[in-house]
Amino acid sequence: MRISQLSERAGLPVGTVKFYLRTGLLPAGRALNATQAEYEQRHLERLRLIRALIEVGRLSVAELQQVLGAIDGPTDTKDGFSAVQGLSPVKGVVPEESLAHAREVVGDFGWTIADDSPQLASLARSIDALTSIGLPPTVARLKVYAEAASHVARSDVDWVSAAPETERVTLALANTVLWEALLDSLRRLAVENQLARRAIGVPGPRLSIPSA
Amino acid sequence: MRISQLSERAGLPVGTVKFYLRTGLLPAGRALNATQAEYEQRHLERLRLIRALIEVGRLSVAELQQVLGAIDGPTDTKDGFSAVQGLSPVKGVVPEESLAHAREVVGDFGWTIADDSPQLASLARSIDALTSIGLPPTVARLKVYAEAASHVARSDVDWVSAAPETERVTLALANTVLWEALLDSLRRLAVENQLARRAIGVPGPRLSIPSA
Repeated sequence: MRISQLSERAGLPVGTVKFYLRTGLLPAGRALNATQAEYEQRHLERLRLIRALIEVGRLSVAELQQVLGAIDGPTDTKDGFSAVQGLSPVKGVVPEESLAHAREVVGDFGWTIADDSPQLASLARSIDALTSIGLPPTVARLKVYAEAASHVARSDVDWVSAAPETERVTLALANTVLWEALLDSLRRLAVENQLARRAIGVPGPRLSIPSA
Repeated sequence: MRISQLSERAGLPVGTVKFYLRTGLLPAGRALNATQAEYEQRHLERLRLIRALIEVGRLSVAELQQVLGAIDGPTDTKDGFSAVQGLSPVKGVVPEESLAHAREVVGDFGWTIADDSPQLASLARSIDALTSIGLPPTVARLKVYAEAASHVARSDVDWVSAAPETERVTLALANTVLWEALLDSLRRLAVENQLARRAIGVPGPRLSIPSA
C-alpha cells in the first residue's frame, strides 16, 4: 500500500507517518521510485503499536526509539521484559538512603529484586513524595499494594510466556505500558465502586491474599 | 519566612516558587512592603504537595490549577474523590461503542459505576489500544486486574475516610496520583520478582480472590 492508505488505515495524518519514518520509529518502505514507496502489513502493525504507545501509554518518541529497536528478534520472556524495563526512568538523582529504604520495602515483601533494578528508584521516588507531604506509606498499605501487584504480575508473566518468541518484546511492551494504563483506570473505577457500595452499606467481602 | 527560605525548604528554585505564585497554585504571602512577603508553614506544605504532584505524578500546571482550588474546604470522602476524579482526562473523542463496551466490562465485574464516569473513557481507550495492536484483553486477564484494583481501592477508601475532613481532598489527591505511581512501580517490581522465582522454579502460591 502507499503512504496515504497506510496513514488512513492507522488513523494518523500523513505528516505524522512521515515524522515516524524520519525518526526511524517506522522502518522505510520499499522504494518504487524517487518519491514513492510501498508499505506492507508489518508497517501498519508497527504504526498502530506506535500510536497506542504514544496516545495511551504517553511514551515519548525518545522512549519509543529506545524500545522499538529490541522488538524484532526472538527472545525469551525474561529478556522480553528486560528490553522494556528501563521505560519511564526517574529523572534526577535519587538519594542512596531512599534507594536503601525501597530495597528494604521489597525485601520485606519477600521479593527477589536486583539491587540495581531501575524500578527501585521509581518506588523510592514515590515513597519520598508521599513522605514529603506528611503522608509516609504505612507498612499495612504497602502490603495491600504489593499483594495487588503480585496478583497481576503473575498473570502478566503467564501472558507473555504463552506468546511465540518473536512476539514477546511486543507483549512485554504492551503489558508494561498499556496494561499499566488499564490498571490505573480500573483502580479509579474500583474506588468509585467502593464509594457507591459503602453509600448503601455493602462494602463487599474482605480479601486475604498472600503477597509473594 | 521569606521566599528564599521557603524555596530552600521546599527544594525548589526561587524562580519556580515565583512561577507557582503567578499561576495561583501557591497562595500569596502576607505583604511586608512593595517587594517582600512573609510565608507560613501552610505555604511550605502546599509547595511540597505541588512538587510531589508535578515530579512524581507528572501532573500539568493546568491540572493542578483544576484540583488545588478544591483542596481547602472540609469535605466527605466521596466528595474528596469527586474533586480529583477528572484528573488525566482522555484527549479526543472516544467512540460511543467503545464506551458501551467499557460499561459492559465493569458491569460484568458487578461494579456500580455512573454511566458518565470520566474513567470509563480512559478504560475504553486502553481496551481500544490493545485491540488495535491485535491483543484485545481477555475476560480472564481483565478479571485478575479488576481483583487487584478492588483490593487496593478498599484500602484507598479506608485511608481517605479515616482522615480529618479538612484533609480529605489532599488525601484523595495523593491517593489518586502518588499511590498510582507507587502501584505502577510495584507492579513492574512484582514482574521482576515473578521472573526471578520462575527461574528457580518457585512461582509462589496461586491467588483466588473475589472481584467486587
